[in-house]
Amino acid sequence: MNHCFDRQAIAQMNKFQRANFINSLSGFKSANLIGSKGTNGVPNLALISSVFHVGANPPLIGMIMRPHTVVRDTLQNIKDTGYYTINHVHADIAAHAHQCSARYTPEQNEFIETGLSEQYSGGFAAPFVAESRVKLAVEVREIQVLQINQTELVIGEIMSVLTENGYVNSDGYVDIEMAGSVAVSGLDSYHRAQRIDRFSYAQPDTSLTSIWKAQS
Amino acid sequence: MNHCFDRQAIAQMNKFQRANFINSLSGFKSANLIGSKGTNGVPNLALISSVFHVGANPPLIGMIMRPHTVVRDTLQNIKDTGYYTINHVHADIAAHAHQCSARYTPEQNEFIETGLSEQYSGGFAAPFVAESRVKLAVEVREIQVLQINQTELVIGEIMSVLTENGYVNSDGYVDIEMAGSVAVSGLDSYHRAQRIDRFSYAQPDTSLTSIWKAQS
Repeated sequence: MNHCFDRQAIAQMNKFQRANFINSLSGFKSANLIGSKGTNGVPNLALISSVFHVGANPPLIGMIMRPHTVVRDTLQNIKDTGYYTINHVHADIAAHAHQCSARYTPEQNEFIETGLSEQYSGGFAAPFVAESRVKLAVEVREIQVLQINQTELVIGEIMSVLTENGYVNSDGYVDIEMAGSVAVSGLDSYHRAQRIDRFSYAQPDTSLTSIWKAQS
Repeated sequence: MNHCFDRQAIAQMNKFQRANFINSLSGFKSANLIGSKGTNGVPNLALISSVFHVGANPPLIGMIMRPHTVVRDTLQNIKDTGYYTINHVHADIAAHAHQCSARYTPEQNEFIETGLSEQYSGGFAAPFVAESRVKLAVEVREIQVLQINQTELVIGEIMSVLTENGYVNSDGYVDIEMAGSVAVSGLDSYHRAQRIDRFSYAQPDTSLTSIWKAQS
């Protein structure tokens, strides 16, 4: 252990360094494209790396959004319509996804601007990303402003899940590595995943076993 | 696109399948060990896969905790003392980290039970994991109960960061892939990361360039 960055060292970084630094510290992040549609009918696509699990029953998923940044149209669409999609980013569309974080105008459609394809399914109001291999239809349930920094926590309920065959194991596990889903670190680094192992349910005084090699 | 799991299909899964399934859908998750110490003096270590970035200035980091599960001691310690550490899990300690999710009694010390080492630094009250390569000292700032499912959102401010030399780039990016930090999917799958690329800041009508190959 060779280096300590204290509060003062962090405060003295320039804005871009600090954003990169702090964004790296939570560990690997999910990479998801949020599809929505405005009351003006314009589809919107935003790259979000703060999607996280909230609960399994009911199936709830959360994300943090900064209201005055490039995601403002997405946040407004969710508030106006109540519906959005969450689409996993895989390696082949990582550059397209990153391009979605450019500051397009509300009238511009990020699908067209970045070369991704709109998909509609099951009468759901918000657009999916056709190229994605794991896609969620989500209905908003709760939005709260975090008083500490005025970001907004958006929690939605998963209404349906679209995925290609072969990714969902019999135990319910979705093999998102096989689906090519990527992880993000910091502001701009994209990573493939390579499984180390799947471990058995942990219990005191019991040794872990691999449940991956056993299956494969 | 070959399969659609609707609300009914999700509701009909058994509890373990649904937990596995829904936990896989947010995408890759961070793997962090939360170090804390109770008012009884017993150190505690919990594996959390829901740590996420909240903001860079001030440097804020959040996590979701279920109050009646194996993390209840950690949550109580944070409420009682206000201090905790967040320690990245790397491949060599992934099995030790997973074992921390076993339901030990409040009197048991997960460091001892799982073979990880306590480390204290800079007078900070909570224990770090010596083996970890990226460690954060965190002071709690806000805890709120999410009414929708009674989980608790814990937000803390990063007070200092301990890391080995060589992981922090000049632009502030912490190379957590080089540090060996792992990603989690579902309930029990651990993954190494392999960089695809680092992309330049996205702007409308400007092509992305690689800022990784340029550096290396």
